[in-house]
Amino acid sequence: MRPQLGENIGAAARAMLNFGLTDLRLVSPRDGWPNPDAGPSASGADSVLDGARAYACTADAVADCSAIIATAQRPRALTKLVHTPRSAAAALRAGPGRAAVLFGPERAGLLTDELALATAILSVPSNPDFGSLNLAQAVLLVAYEWAAGVAPPDARLNAYDGPAAQPSVAGLIDHVEAELERAGYFRVTSRERATRRTLRNLLTRPAFSEKEVRTLRGVVAALTGERRRSGL
Amino acid sequence: MRPQLGENIGAAARAMLNFGLTDLRLVSPRDGWPNPDAGPSASGADSVLDGARAYACTADAVADCSAIIATAQRPRALTKLVHTPRSAAAALRAGPGRAAVLFGPERAGLLTDELALATAILSVPSNPDFGSLNLAQAVLLVAYEWAAGVAPPDARLNAYDGPAAQPSVAGLIDHVEAELERAGYFRVTSRERATRRTLRNLLTRPAFSEKEVRTLRGVVAALTGERRRSGL
Repeated sequence: MRPQLGENIGAAARAMLNFGLTDLRLVSPRDGWPNPDAGPSASGADSVLDGARAYACTADAVADCSAIIATAQRPRALTKLVHTPRSAAAALRAGPGRAAVLFGPERAGLLTDELALATAILSVPSNPDFGSLNLAQAVLLVAYEWAAGVAPPDARLNAYDGPAAQPSVAGLIDHVEAELERAGYFRVTSRERATRRTLRNLLTRPAFSEKEVRTLRGVVAALTGERRRSGL
Repeated sequence: MRPQLGENIGAAARAMLNFGLTDLRLVSPRDGWPNPDAGPSASGADSVLDGARAYACTADAVADCSAIIATAQRPRALTKLVHTPRSAAAALRAGPGRAAVLFGPERAGLLTDELALATAILSVPSNPDFGSLNLAQAVLLVAYEWAAGVAPPDARLNAYDGPAAQPSVAGLIDHVEAELERAGYFRVTSRERATRRTLRNLLTRPAFSEKEVRTLRGVVAALTGERRRSGL
């Protein structure tokens, strides 16, 4: 990247390290390198700053790279593949060889000659009426997508020890139904079948864990216990 | 979101508008609302700030929402679905009903009671040795994924008319808890908080529909009705 403010270099380093990226290369940073302004905004990502190297020009910085993807919010009339962050991440991982992402200076963006170095363009699809990402935010999105390519981005259930065995759920349903019968819940006999079906679906759908089934049975026992003890 | 610094509210508004999100709701912002500190960091996203509303508590802020996804970097022992930003975006788009994403205050994160309101958790998979996203960056990633327009999720629920609004679920929980109190279920006071939390999570996680909530309330009423009528 070819940044102007040390503060932004630090913020970019922080964004990178959040997603495990560490190889930061600076092209002719305006205030030289190292720059003490970078430290505070790195918020602890000092290892990235310590390893950062400064280069005189963009071509030198990417000389050992094969895939070179240049960020550009308005890719203009370049005949190049324009990636989203997601497809860029896939391209960066495709290898072989090192891959680089180029970021321009804060306001101006990359020069046409720098874009010409790139094997492809990366453009973040954003609100056409308000595209206002700062340097560290652009780095963050690219780093996030790079990391999302490693770990499959699926949802998982936290602190959930898996669905209870079928007999446990059946036991819960039997328990609830028995108590409801006793309480006269199924009075309207024309609706009884539908009501039982609703109840069974409702208790089966959440895939309650064994612990949750035990809790629910405790709840039913508590709600009916007084009644039972009073002999009703 | 429940922010402390106006500057961060502005930065979050900017992150949102980049990806076309505009409905910003603030929960007890430390310095009141409106806050003149928010304007500069919004970098032009003033329309989001102008439309932002402040609420006294998180439950009020999400009262008209069905899908409520809480951001948490360390989701601890809650039995809830943990989304990545990508799978959360798919869940948020699945509708029907309004969807909300909850963000905690800058450092502390959301309270356990706020997490209990949520139908699922969102955790950004980041570097295990360096997880340091600020509020606006977390908002940026969620907004980016929301806009990235995820393909519909593989599985869908058949004959399910969407999750109930938050007050319906809260009403069910209150009903169950009130009856359990009456029945002496929370006798072991050292376990009461944990037991209530287990129960809240258990009743929130399945994203019961309005019809299912009504059925469950009927079940509780039936199980306790006899007891009530007998004057116990």
